[in-house]
Amino acid sequence: MIGGGIGAFIGDAHRRASRISNDYVLLGGVFDVDFEKSKQFAALEEIDPERCYPSVDDFIRGELALPEEKRINIVSIVTPNSLHFEFAAKLLKNGFHVICEKPMTMTVDEALRLEEIVNSKGLIFGLTHTYTGYPMVREMKERIAAGELGEIQRIDAQYYQGWLNPALHGGPEAAKEVWRLNPEKSGISSAMGDIGVHAFNLIEYTTGLEINSVLADLNHFKEEIKLDLDGTVLLRTNSDAKGVIRVCQVATGEENNLTIAVYGSKGSFKWSQENPNYLIKLFGDQPTQISKPGNPYNQPFASQSHTMPAGHPEGIYEAIANIYKGVAQAIRGEKVREGAFPTVHDGVRGMKFIHSVVRSNKEGNKWVEIE
Amino acid sequence: MIGGGIGAFIGDAHRRASRISNDYVLLGGVFDVDFEKSKQFAALEEIDPERCYPSVDDFIRGELALPEEKRINIVSIVTPNSLHFEFAAKLLKNGFHVICEKPMTMTVDEALRLEEIVNSKGLIFGLTHTYTGYPMVREMKERIAAGELGEIQRIDAQYYQGWLNPALHGGPEAAKEVWRLNPEKSGISSAMGDIGVHAFNLIEYTTGLEINSVLADLNHFKEEIKLDLDGTVLLRTNSDAKGVIRVCQVATGEENNLTIAVYGSKGSFKWSQENPNYLIKLFGDQPTQISKPGNPYNQPFASQSHTMPAGHPEGIYEAIANIYKGVAQAIRGEKVREGAFPTVHDGVRGMKFIHSVVRSNKEGNKWVEIE
Amino acid sequence: MIGGGIGAFIGDAHRRASRISNDYVLLGGVFDVDFEKSKQFAALEEIDPERCYPSVDDFIRGELALPEEKRINIVSIVTPNSLHFEFAAKLLKNGFHVICEKPMTMTVDEALRLEEIVNSKGLIFGLTHTYTGYPMVREMKERIAAGELGEIQRIDAQYYQGWLNPALHGGPEAAKEVWRLNPEKSGISSAMGDIGVHAFNLIEYTTGLEINSVLADLNHFKEEIKLDLDGTVLLRTNSDAKGVIRVCQVATGEENNLTIAVYGSKGSFKWSQENPNYLIKLFGDQPTQISKPGNPYNQPFASQSHTMPAGHPEGIYEAIANIYKGVAQAIRGEKVREGAFPTVHDGVRGMKFIHSVVRSNKEGNKWVEIE
Amino acid sequence: MIGGGIGAFIGDAHRRASRISNDYVLLGGVFDVDFEKSKQFAALEEIDPERCYPSVDDFIRGELALPEEKRINIVSIVTPNSLHFEFAAKLLKNGFHVICEKPMTMTVDEALRLEEIVNSKGLIFGLTHTYTGYPMVREMKERIAAGELGEIQRIDAQYYQGWLNPALHGGPEAAKEVWRLNPEKSGISSAMGDIGVHAFNLIEYTTGLEINSVLADLNHFKEEIKLDLDGTVLLRTNSDAKGVIRVCQVATGEENNLTIAVYGSKGSFKWSQENPNYLIKLFGDQPTQISKPGNPYNQPFASQSHTMPAGHPEGIYEAIANIYKGVAQAIRGEKVREGAFPTVHDGVRGMKFIHSVVRSNKEGNKWVEIE
Repeated sequence: MIGGGIGAFIGDAHRRASRISNDYVLLGGVFDVDFEKSKQFAALEEIDPERCYPSVDDFIRGELALPEEKRINIVSIVTPNSLHFEFAAKLLKNGFHVICEKPMTMTVDEALRLEEIVNSKGLIFGLTHTYTGYPMVREMKERIAAGELGEIQRIDAQYYQGWLNPALHGGPEAAKEVWRLNPEKSGISSAMGDIGVHAFNLIEYTTGLEINSVLADLNHFKEEIKLDLDGTVLLRTNSDAKGVIRVCQVATGEENNLTIAVYGSKGSFKWSQENPNYLIKLFGDQPTQISKPGNPYNQPFASQSHTMPAGHPEGIYEAIANIYKGVAQAIRGEKVREGAFPTVHDGVRGMKFIHSVVRSNKEGNKWVEIE
Repeated sequence: MIGGGIGAFIGDAHRRASRISNDYVLLGGVFDVDFEKSKQFAALEEIDPERCYPSVDDFIRGELALPEEKRINIVSIVTPNSLHFEFAAKLLKNGFHVICEKPMTMTVDEALRLEEIVNSKGLIFGLTHTYTGYPMVREMKERIAAGELGEIQRIDAQYYQGWLNPALHGGPEAAKEVWRLNPEKSGISSAMGDIGVHAFNLIEYTTGLEINSVLADLNHFKEEIKLDLDGTVLLRTNSDAKGVIRVCQVATGEENNLTIAVYGSKGSFKWSQENPNYLIKLFGDQPTQISKPGNPYNQPFASQSHTMPAGHPEGIYEAIANIYKGVAQAIRGEKVREGAFPTVHDGVRGMKFIHSVVRSNKEGNKWVEIE
Repeated sequence: MIGGGIGAFIGDAHRRASRISNDYVLLGGVFDVDFEKSKQFAALEEIDPERCYPSVDDFIRGELALPEEKRINIVSIVTPNSLHFEFAAKLLKNGFHVICEKPMTMTVDEALRLEEIVNSKGLIFGLTHTYTGYPMVREMKERIAAGELGEIQRIDAQYYQGWLNPALHGGPEAAKEVWRLNPEKSGISSAMGDIGVHAFNLIEYTTGLEINSVLADLNHFKEEIKLDLDGTVLLRTNSDAKGVIRVCQVATGEENNLTIAVYGSKGSFKWSQENPNYLIKLFGDQPTQISKPGNPYNQPFASQSHTMPAGHPEGIYEAIANIYKGVAQAIRGEKVREGAFPTVHDGVRGMKFIHSVVRSNKEGNKWVEIE
Repeated sequence: MIGGGIGAFIGDAHRRASRISNDYVLLGGVFDVDFEKSKQFAALEEIDPERCYPSVDDFIRGELALPEEKRINIVSIVTPNSLHFEFAAKLLKNGFHVICEKPMTMTVDEALRLEEIVNSKGLIFGLTHTYTGYPMVREMKERIAAGELGEIQRIDAQYYQGWLNPALHGGPEAAKEVWRLNPEKSGISSAMGDIGVHAFNLIEYTTGLEINSVLADLNHFKEEIKLDLDGTVLLRTNSDAKGVIRVCQVATGEENNLTIAVYGSKGSFKWSQENPNYLIKLFGDQPTQISKPGNPYNQPFASQSHTMPAGHPEGIYEAIANIYKGVAQAIRGEKVREGAFPTVHDGVRGMKFIHSVVRSNKEGNKWVEIE
């Protein structure tokens, strides 16, 4: 991993997710520009200190010196956006597979050069357009590809957040402090570059269409705001379908409201990221249909992308993890608040409940005390 | 880990969750009654073969022979229910902390004996009443404890599933094949023992009340069904509040529909497991209020139990994990279907989109082609 | 109409509904025990003063004196509960059809006597169990009758309101002032008599089953409260299905939360009064299905019970009525607040919008000012 | 009423709504271009045959001949769109107040001339922009006007329907048969003229802002389709707020999906016509808030626009009306299907239920049979 040291939010998310996927072990990396901090992080994660490198160049040298079967073969890049291209290009040229946080690069030119490197080296390059990993998004993709919607007639994607509203209203200083609004760190766009591109990707991913021209109206609101906080983009595709992408980062109170609706001649699909377990299918002449993950009626791609039984939202891992964490804290002797994990006493209460219930029923539905 | 080898669903869930919690490493265990299968599993997970033991007794002997700092100090028990007590008791007596899948034991007597052991040894024992790990359940607990609802007046919990409906209608053989309906493996109850106890635990967990007597009406439907598939339990508590638990495993089409509603003199809370990110607060004289995880307005316990920003359902880890898995499969040379992970080409498309959008806006909202 | 004069809520609802049904004209009645007030009401409604009678006996005498084709042939009884029986019996005995607000009578005995009168006279008697009038409730009834759910296995109805919570906590005086809690006016039950009976009726109506025995646990909360405010009723039916009715009038913050779920061997239905346009069908092996009124896929009974096109909730009449009311107020010279109805200026704005939009499109998607 | 005779959907809706509003009586009109049909309608509605006129000119002459206090003083125009202007102008010039179905006219010029007439005559002219009659839309308007959202930053309105999809795919003939797609009857636009204008009106109504320029992209899909079936309109207002209106009549499976979202610097509102009883308020730093009609926390305008208690969707009138209709059919001796209205037997069952429940509770929660 490059980046993602102590306090880094997105690096932590990548690590947790890679562990759920069951295919990855974190062996080494460059976790911080500050080598000392990087070493602290490696110690915390019990990573071999030899494989905590001061720079990407050192990383490459060090790993290439190892025998191939011991070598790290895939690197996650979770640094600030402006470093994505440089590091990805170097790593790929030296034979490492790469997973890269989005946006992939700062410019179209860098993007094209990276594509060339990947193609010429025959390596794997994965970009974390996270939302394409949801089972019901994959279900939508597979069923649209199978022609279930007929001809696509209209596409509508929305990505509304409110988190930059305080920066807009906090005076010129407030905006300056937000790296998202700094063109040097964010590139030429804030709202479109950060979240609009997710909506764009989701449309192309689910429909299989190519968006081939755009007409945009962006809003900076104030002169001192250097990048767009809001915008609407009209779309034309390589089909008769037209569409729209609507994006806002100052939609007060919105959290992460990404939605997509695809209307076809035979039916329509709707999906929303904040309730990702529901794929809604509309028909012209039949009741609305709601598909949920973990059910036998789903297509193979969605089924393979879901590990829990139906009715258990994926967040259930996090719920179990919270219980595991409480236990770990207790074992380490940390102060654990009541309710952090169910104890043996909860187990006793549960057994008493079950037995009292069965007794009440057997005795003809009478009250039974739980001693 | 005891149990949870190849093909075991709940063991896998425990492993994934323990990895998200960032506090655990799987070092060894007894993964299957069949030692050969257990060894296969250990190999798959790259676990030291020395620490893959043929039995729980061997596990205890082997680990105790190691110096304390190398020793496994916590064991997850994810075996069939009937073995929980025996293994938990042994492990605790030998000084291991334990996390145990529910139901904790088969009888009240075993439960009480286990409680005694835990208390006398001063060890940590965690029971995976999963639903108490959800951030919004914890928010509810903390706010009820702070008196926000006033006096609790009514409690209503529901746990409806439909998965045993085929067993009910598949003829006598169908029911026999389901271990859940076999009293030797499941204990004296199916619906109440398996899911009713979760509803019970959730009530005591969130309200802080004790349920002290029950009146139950259970339904087996057919004589050949040895255990309850359905039931309603009237509740009395150590307060004026009465309540009801409603449970069904043949509620056709229900997936995992666990809900709780707590009505107090000053307000009420509702929560539902299938949409776990919404805590609904009702008032007598104000608009309904919906709290979601990751927001600054939540109490500390919920905040500490959530790692993503607001608007990202916890299942987002699973979404990212799906992308990581696609990349891993590609690297291993497995056949990967299109769309399994975003590639460099998707990155190129994204960069073109952003740049075209900004150009369209700059040029006075004109159409710009994405080449 | 008997009762329902100035200030009477339920009488007004009956009148509005009877007008939507297009089959009724209000010709006369006894609108208030106070004859002066009754006459005032008649004047307001432009009812022939001759047909505003001082008592039910006068009403009967007066109407029977008229030639049959001019006579009122159906009477709505919307008086306090304790008068329902006396008036209904009298009117029926004298040959009038009757629509009666629920509860029909105060006792079982009165109910049976009324049934006898209706049967012997061959007259029509309608009871306003309002919820059976919803299109989607009728759809549910018709589809269950057709066997769509297979054998019914579980029934669960809920009716939660919070409006009596202030009476419970307002001291002894508060409760006394509420007629609902006065046994002389309400009969032997508050929660069960007022709303539980709706849940009961809805179950028998939709499923066609008979509930043939009950086990109840009611809650008065305080000694000074003479009637139940809360209760749970276990149900047994003339089939294998068991069920539960849950009722509360002190569920703080609940408004009128009546729900029903019917689980069968082949599928299940759910309906909720607060969102009455959605009939949810669950399957064991197919996506969830949502039916809405006004669609061609519905059965005849639901279709005949709905007058608007799909997607227009029935409340749309009320919305249009609000606009009509604003206009009427303006014509009468009353002070009308801005926005009470759309004016000609709104019409001008609309026409300008349409024409500007079409011009922008024709000119190649350019900005067009709306003058 | 002009138009709205036998078989006319919108005329019927106007009549029902005017009756709910309690301020109108239908006294006469020109109900059909075919005078015979018009007379049939008048007979059905028991309207004085003298006031069923062959033409609008006759109507004006006839009514003006009556003494002022007997004269019809307000006329509803529910004819095809192309006749709105002519009839409205004539009626206004002769001193009648007018309620007119939308679109008000066919051209901007007609609209301006009508505005001039209304203003010069000092008469009331109401346009049925139905959606402005909803209580929660009025609540939104009043609270935005009070400054609750701060500065408005973004506006997003959607109006999606699917009903023209069959016309699009039914071959050239299908489209020709639909008057909506005939420019002579519909004016210059279908989607924008029919439903886009509602979205436009709703924005100006709720926000108080003026939309002062538009950029539109409309879609006809096929050359033989003469009017727009789909379109997106970018908006600029007399403030910093930008916005978008999205409209489609071939969004397969959508019924009448009109939504509006208004994002301000201090908070945001969302409302949706298919669930019109929920006004959602988003905050930057507090839980989401949902307001519903009939509650004391609402502003006066919403409160005056709602007649039912909280929790009863307005469609409840229609539910009661269905019961009234069943009774009327029974009295007229028509064949009435079982379940069309609750009978005295349902009343008996209800009374037995209540009494059995209370007995079960009194006897210590025992089973009691309902005989």
